Amino acid sequence: MTSIFSKIVAGDIPSYKIAEDHRYYAFLDINPLSKGHTLVIPKQEVDYIYDLDDETLAGLHVFAKRVAKAISSVIDCKRIGIAVIGLEVPHAHIHLVPINGIHDIDFSKPKLNIEKEEMIMISQKIADYFA
Amino acid sequence: MTSIFSKIVAGDIPSYKIAEDHRYYAFLDINPLSKGHTLVIPKQEVDYIYDLDDETLAGLHVFAKRVAKAISSVIDCKRIGIAVIGLEVPHAHIHLVPINGIHDIDFSKPKLNIEKEEMIMISQKIADYFA
Repeated sequence: MTSIFSKIVAGDIPSYKIAEDHRYYAFLDINPLSKGHTLVIPKQEVDYIYDLDDETLAGLHVFAKRVAKAISSVIDCKRIGIAVIGLEVPHAHIHLVPINGIHDIDFSKPKLNIEKEEMIMISQKIADYFA
Repeated sequence: MTSIFSKIVAGDIPSYKIAEDHRYYAFLDINPLSKGHTLVIPKQEVDYIYDLDDETLAGLHVFAKRVAKAISSVIDCKRIGIAVIGLEVPHAHIHLVPINGIHDIDFSKPKLNIEKEEMIMISQKIADYFA
């Protein structure tokens, strides 16, 4: 079965895309904990992140670092927090969450509702800084 | 200034050690969210994880994967969740947290109080599985 994230990578489902290479893809979380909250995924459809081979796992985290640096250039925050839970969508994904305090990564908190126009603007700005 | 984690690596502060190589160190979190909650750190004393160079960051995550597999061999859980917040101790560290639900990584929750004898037993069992 094709995961919802693979459909996003294929363009069958639209996303607020931030960056892509031949192995990885980054896009804004549509249920963000904070502005700029981004998901980074391998294009390879693996449920559990630790089932990725070492080289793909390493590359995923280096790609995520580049995305995090771009987010930090756009979003005012102390740093980018990282979380991998992975019990909802069966396709490994790293949450990159701009944070200012230790309780800013708490998935039981209500998610932000950001207008489409602002999501487009945020994703395009971060994409511009991705290097 | 030497971080508390560098003192742990040096053996100046005791820890429930799980694994170590020349670049990385893993030990039980003494304020665990769940049994087996482990911290994985680079020996290099860097505050923000994304200030690590790409190669050290990649190696850290591959080392953490090996630790996670060992934890899963000992602790009954759905998978190992990952979190990097890093606003408390100024030495980059990855939380590996055995989880069964999406709200099991929430640092505002009260921490477990596990007796020293059990912490020793857990760390030794996980260390035995580390490969």
